[in-house]
Amino acid sequence: MASSYSFKYFNVRFPEHHPYVAHVEINRAEKMNAFFEAMWLELRQVFNQLSEDSMVRAIVLSGAGEKAFTAGLDVKAASQGGALADGQSTVDPARKAVHLRRHVLEFQDCITSVERCEKPVIVAMHGFALGLAIDLSTAADVRLCSKDVRFAVKEVDIGLAADIGTLSRLPKVVGSSSWVKEVALSARIFGADEALRVGFVNAVYENRTETISAALKLATLIASKSPVAVQGTKEILNWSRDHSVQDGLRYTGVWNSAALQTADVSAALLSGLQKRTPTFEKL
Amino acid sequence: MASSYSFKYFNVRFPEHHPYVAHVEINRAEKMNAFFEAMWLELRQVFNQLSEDSMVRAIVLSGAGEKAFTAGLDVKAASQGGALADGQSTVDPARKAVHLRRHVLEFQDCITSVERCEKPVIVAMHGFALGLAIDLSTAADVRLCSKDVRFAVKEVDIGLAADIGTLSRLPKVVGSSSWVKEVALSARIFGADEALRVGFVNAVYENRTETISAALKLATLIASKSPVAVQGTKEILNWSRDHSVQDGLRYTGVWNSAALQTADVSAALLSGLQKRTPTFEKL
Amino acid sequence: MASSYSFKYFNVRFPEHHPYVAHVEINRAEKMNAFFEAMWLELRQVFNQLSEDSMVRAIVLSGAGEKAFTAGLDVKAASQGGALADGQSTVDPARKAVHLRRHVLEFQDCITSVERCEKPVIVAMHGFALGLAIDLSTAADVRLCSKDVRFAVKEVDIGLAADIGTLSRLPKVVGSSSWVKEVALSARIFGADEALRVGFVNAVYENRTETISAALKLATLIASKSPVAVQGTKEILNWSRDHSVQDGLRYTGVWNSAALQTADVSAALLSGLQKRTPTFEKL
Amino acid sequence: MASSYSFKYFNVRFPEHHPYVAHVEINRAEKMNAFFEAMWLELRQVFNQLSEDSMVRAIVLSGAGEKAFTAGLDVKAASQGGALADGQSTVDPARKAVHLRRHVLEFQDCITSVERCEKPVIVAMHGFALGLAIDLSTAADVRLCSKDVRFAVKEVDIGLAADIGTLSRLPKVVGSSSWVKEVALSARIFGADEALRVGFVNAVYENRTETISAALKLATLIASKSPVAVQGTKEILNWSRDHSVQDGLRYTGVWNSAALQTADVSAALLSGLQKRTPTFEKL
Amino acid sequence: MASSYSFKYFNVRFPEHHPYVAHVEINRAEKMNAFFEAMWLELRQVFNQLSEDSMVRAIVLSGAGEKAFTAGLDVKAASQGGALADGQSTVDPARKAVHLRRHVLEFQDCITSVERCEKPVIVAMHGFALGLAIDLSTAADVRLCSKDVRFAVKEVDIGLAADIGTLSRLPKVVGSSSWVKEVALSARIFGADEALRVGFVNAVYENRTETISAALKLATLIASKSPVAVQGTKEILNWSRDHSVQDGLRYTGVWNSAALQTADVSAALLSGLQKRTPTFEKL
Amino acid sequence: MASSYSFKYFNVRFPEHHPYVAHVEINRAEKMNAFFEAMWLELRQVFNQLSEDSMVRAIVLSGAGEKAFTAGLDVKAASQGGALADGQSTVDPARKAVHLRRHVLEFQDCITSVERCEKPVIVAMHGFALGLAIDLSTAADVRLCSKDVRFAVKEVDIGLAADIGTLSRLPKVVGSSSWVKEVALSARIFGADEALRVGFVNAVYENRTETISAALKLATLIASKSPVAVQGTKEILNWSRDHSVQDGLRYTGVWNSAALQTADVSAALLSGLQKRTPTFEKL
Repeated sequence: MASSYSFKYFNVRFPEHHPYVAHVEINRAEKMNAFFEAMWLELRQVFNQLSEDSMVRAIVLSGAGEKAFTAGLDVKAASQGGALADGQSTVDPARKAVHLRRHVLEFQDCITSVERCEKPVIVAMHGFALGLAIDLSTAADVRLCSKDVRFAVKEVDIGLAADIGTLSRLPKVVGSSSWVKEVALSARIFGADEALRVGFVNAVYENRTETISAALKLATLIASKSPVAVQGTKEILNWSRDHSVQDGLRYTGVWNSAALQTADVSAALLSGLQKRTPTFEKL
Repeated sequence: MASSYSFKYFNVRFPEHHPYVAHVEINRAEKMNAFFEAMWLELRQVFNQLSEDSMVRAIVLSGAGEKAFTAGLDVKAASQGGALADGQSTVDPARKAVHLRRHVLEFQDCITSVERCEKPVIVAMHGFALGLAIDLSTAADVRLCSKDVRFAVKEVDIGLAADIGTLSRLPKVVGSSSWVKEVALSARIFGADEALRVGFVNAVYENRTETISAALKLATLIASKSPVAVQGTKEILNWSRDHSVQDGLRYTGVWNSAALQTADVSAALLSGLQKRTPTFEKL
Repeated sequence: MASSYSFKYFNVRFPEHHPYVAHVEINRAEKMNAFFEAMWLELRQVFNQLSEDSMVRAIVLSGAGEKAFTAGLDVKAASQGGALADGQSTVDPARKAVHLRRHVLEFQDCITSVERCEKPVIVAMHGFALGLAIDLSTAADVRLCSKDVRFAVKEVDIGLAADIGTLSRLPKVVGSSSWVKEVALSARIFGADEALRVGFVNAVYENRTETISAALKLATLIASKSPVAVQGTKEILNWSRDHSVQDGLRYTGVWNSAALQTADVSAALLSGLQKRTPTFEKL
Repeated sequence: MASSYSFKYFNVRFPEHHPYVAHVEINRAEKMNAFFEAMWLELRQVFNQLSEDSMVRAIVLSGAGEKAFTAGLDVKAASQGGALADGQSTVDPARKAVHLRRHVLEFQDCITSVERCEKPVIVAMHGFALGLAIDLSTAADVRLCSKDVRFAVKEVDIGLAADIGTLSRLPKVVGSSSWVKEVALSARIFGADEALRVGFVNAVYENRTETISAALKLATLIASKSPVAVQGTKEILNWSRDHSVQDGLRYTGVWNSAALQTADVSAALLSGLQKRTPTFEKL
Repeated sequence: MASSYSFKYFNVRFPEHHPYVAHVEINRAEKMNAFFEAMWLELRQVFNQLSEDSMVRAIVLSGAGEKAFTAGLDVKAASQGGALADGQSTVDPARKAVHLRRHVLEFQDCITSVERCEKPVIVAMHGFALGLAIDLSTAADVRLCSKDVRFAVKEVDIGLAADIGTLSRLPKVVGSSSWVKEVALSARIFGADEALRVGFVNAVYENRTETISAALKLATLIASKSPVAVQGTKEILNWSRDHSVQDGLRYTGVWNSAALQTADVSAALLSGLQKRTPTFEKL
Repeated sequence: MASSYSFKYFNVRFPEHHPYVAHVEINRAEKMNAFFEAMWLELRQVFNQLSEDSMVRAIVLSGAGEKAFTAGLDVKAASQGGALADGQSTVDPARKAVHLRRHVLEFQDCITSVERCEKPVIVAMHGFALGLAIDLSTAADVRLCSKDVRFAVKEVDIGLAADIGTLSRLPKVVGSSSWVKEVALSARIFGADEALRVGFVNAVYENRTETISAALKLATLIASKSPVAVQGTKEILNWSRDHSVQDGLRYTGVWNSAALQTADVSAALLSGLQKRTPTFEKL
């Protein structure tokens, strides 16, 4: 199976003893895993494929190398020829706006592929986790980090509002909009303890290795549950975030009118009564 | 008055020295207060009646027995003949879906009766508080618990997405969606301290007795305020959760165009200036 | 410039060594900065003017005197002749409702001027910060306080639901709706530590002076960033709070289609690479 | 079956040769079918029961007697002792508001039972169809009328805004908000031709008998289709009215993930290819 | 009273025999009533004042001179020095965008003052009614026109998307989005008959004089009704347009909890029974 | 250029004398242009490509052959092996639901590509235009048809609710929800005159040739306008359909803060004053 997951900027592995778990690693350690356009296009491919792969039930996302989960956007590349290259071009500003808008919407869609992915995604972060790291991790479901992590919503420091997802998702991820405003407006660094306190991450571990190991353990636990139940839970939580409670309840009712017909319910109920570990059909 | 509150699965009491406070107790201690269909239908009757009872201004909800607030759905009953009984029936799946949907929407509506109740509801939880306990308590206004409480969003463990309210309401109750996703996807147990830290409960007490006692004290305090003010506050907070700030402000303006005409305002203002305890007309 | 900012109930200063920062002080210390109608009308003037003043990039709001940020509504004034004066008038209640609604909507709009202000507003609170203090501070972006602060959502104690913004905004500011319901329904006092724990304030300082000093420092940091980036960030965070993630992303894309054409991006990128402090054109 | 449909103010019949069709008739001809409280409570019972009756697939609603579909609210009854009885009571206006609100919401819910009914409802109107007639018919799915019909959104003529559904639903039923505003603000009478032109009714017939006959024919046609398809169509159209296209599409996708598993699809496809009339299992 | 309504670009009259009716006339006939900035700022003043004037219950808006209701934006003025003056300026496009956005939002707000006005507004249009004429008239409640009227959504012909309200409101005013897209994308002229057919106007009259006369007659009819009922009806219809039916119903219930306490209901009921014309207190 | 538009099931032409206009023809006349999966996947490719092609400013969509625009879904193909093939499979219904949902959402997305296309799309319909024809045409901007057209929302006749867009979009396209419910629930045929009357189509022509010719003429007119204005108009109308007027106005303001900086405005203004035809840069 792994053979069909051969990418240039991402390693996709299926670690032994972690049934139904995929481990995606950002693979550009020599540049602190900084992103440029080809990478986010490939990221979308990776997650689109995992989303429909019936052998995958939970996913861990981490960064290669000791220094960084990702240092964010590759600013040098961007300043040399990308969309941000030059604000003073002679092109009609309205026409330039059309191209910038298409560019931003496409970039957003690549990151949103993590949110759209039907399987839960657990991010394990360490070292520098700046700018795009926040956009990317807020599109995931669970965030873990190591003690040495250095977070920042870095975008205002390069003269722009974070437009790839942070400003839309971060206030819905953590509890305090006071805190979100402060870190988004000041671009200041914050560490693991603060991230834990405000609810941005779920837990802090000693180092990169232990963080990834904890992420794989959690992924394995989730992957051992009924995939019908797990994927329904992810979908309904995402829907509920964006709708009223009344709309959330109704959507859940319609969703479960099919999902409750699964044999997984009786399998799980029976295993529970018999103290056995249930097994579930592929999905 | 108590005579009109005679139910099979719920005790409804009006404790002395707690004016305008009703205390509802789930009364199936021998089965750890586990719910089956007749119980949630009765729960709705209880809260519909309290909602319009002008002698009631605040409500405490707790569970009988030392072991559990509620162990959730009575899985044995459900596996023997209810909606979850068998996923492999020969009935047309679309027709089965209609019946499941009606069943889920009816069940949701019973739990929503707690949210719809015009009076604030304070839940005092102890011991096992699993599955349906989370659905039920997120429909209430304030959550208290004892040290020994054992919470879990248990549903994925029986092969289904929690569909009676937890997935729609829990993310709007606590601050960190990271944490909600983790506990909803893993079904792991969490205790009183974690519940307090993430904002799921307001306070933790030594044991069941002290938790209920604290709940009654808070209920009594709330019941001593103007019922026009208290019930307006509950309604507007519920509406605001599901609407934009602008819509929230406008709804509040319309609501208060009638509510501000109450004599309670001058009574409260006057009492405040005279350092007296105001009394308020029934509502 | 200061000459154009001459108001009766508010001091507006432009402190030295804090470039582009305005400091607004509620100036009615002898009455604990309690508000009456003329004051909130003037507050709107102040913030409307600051919003479009290109010499201002961040704003600090604090209260004069040692006793209070603001004790809230001037209840004595209100009970003597304002909208709350008397609930038992002989006027047609429907006609009275029209006047009350207009009054509430106008009052709300004055407080909303802080939210609408295009520049970030940091509130520095100390001493009594009751009722309207919460309405006002939740319309700001970042909240700081001193150790001695005494907060309360005081409105139910005068017989009304808080209608100037607290009930619509507070649940979107802090993480735990459990906590919001409790303080809004009980009107109890809470202090700096609790406010920090639930995410209502970002930080706590020793006293009023240090709180204001910290607020000015943060304002100065924010004011040193690209105003295009900072004001875009405020606007998009406010929009995202009230819309789905999908709508937030699209709005951001359209917003940035113009904002990314700023010369600030290349200025900031270049300064970053050259380790210089960038300067940005007025906005 | 008919025996279980014995009501005081409504005749419920199952006309021969119209399989799966129920005919509900408002039965107070001597008072031009004017409504008072007991009637709308009973109306809800009728439609709740029909909604879950698997022998019913489409419903016709008409009024007894030649004079009126319904003349609306029984104003004399209302002026003698109901909620509208007296605007000048000495009761606290805020407390009176609570009772009025409960009354209005309950009344609305009774009329909404027609919209909530899972089966399509076709209204056949004739003669006077005033006030409540509009509220009631906009909650139905298809509206037919006879030439002699006399419509009016009558409420402003008795000093109130139409609050039982007309103002919320009529603008979503017809095309021109210009027209809705005019008839709602002026309370003027309009006839069958105008109703047809603006899209309020689907067709106009010679007289009451022919209108009812056409309604029954249409109901019979709809009742001959797959009930899975018909009830899904009603539900999705109602949902789509209140949501964005994107939300409508997603809800449809989730709905049909169960509904497409029906045997009705292959039955219908096969009958189509074989030019036979399909028969469908009960639902 | 008229003395307080002295404006430069608008005549405000209170025609005899039309009690409680105000007639606003755009007064720049020599330039076909074309608008420039000072005019729309004044328009807002006019409608804000009328909104709270208790002697006014319905408003007619028309244009002076035989040639035009309004030819729209004064393009010559705009091309000489306004916001549209020059697309090729050397200013930072992001900074220019901030100024354009403020300009557009301010302009929109002026036109929205017609929608926000608490009293119904009837527009009587004749001759040229181009561009801004559509923005302006869709913010009103009822639209009438004379036979000679020439409408066009003219904006694409000057290289811009109509941004003062037409694109947001026109699709919610008329029935066919097919038609709206065609006229908005092609900028073609359409006449009175087509406007009537699609529901853009309510009725067509012979000429300007008869149109205004019909508008005054309708305004007088509306002004003879209970102002509590009429203004509630306008407000609830506007709210319902932008919300789900369920939210519309609830808002109506809260609104009417105060409005139903008016003495107008019993006055109207009594007059109805006694066949008298009721009189209503000022509002 | 045409060379890059070589597709199997669609002809894409750039007709002479129609500058900037693309003409897409469904090309399966021998099967009445009925759709199967490969076709809708290709349709999305066609419209995605046209959306970003700066040589295209307006698009016409029609069907090859005299018999049909499209007869809809190729039911025979679907009954032989597609998603609808068999409702009685032995697969777990919950797992089957996942696959059906993915299938429906993918199919919807293909049709939505017409709505998402940045250029206006004019559909010219003739002959049979059933089922999918309605889904497809409601995703377009303007609908034209010939006299012989035969429309039907056909889906209930094959036992399913129309799930590819008709139920979400048709009620927002035409004025009367009464009419939409009737044709969607009865699946009856309706012709050109009825389609015109309810606002489903903009105009009716003698035959297929004249319809296409009229569509090309309209497309050419639209393509002669500023593409900045035209594409902004389409986008804002689509956004406004799904949002409140207030949100529509704000989105327009932000959109136009960039779009108004186009040189097209001064080009168009100047041409207007000089009575010349303006030319606009590519976009």
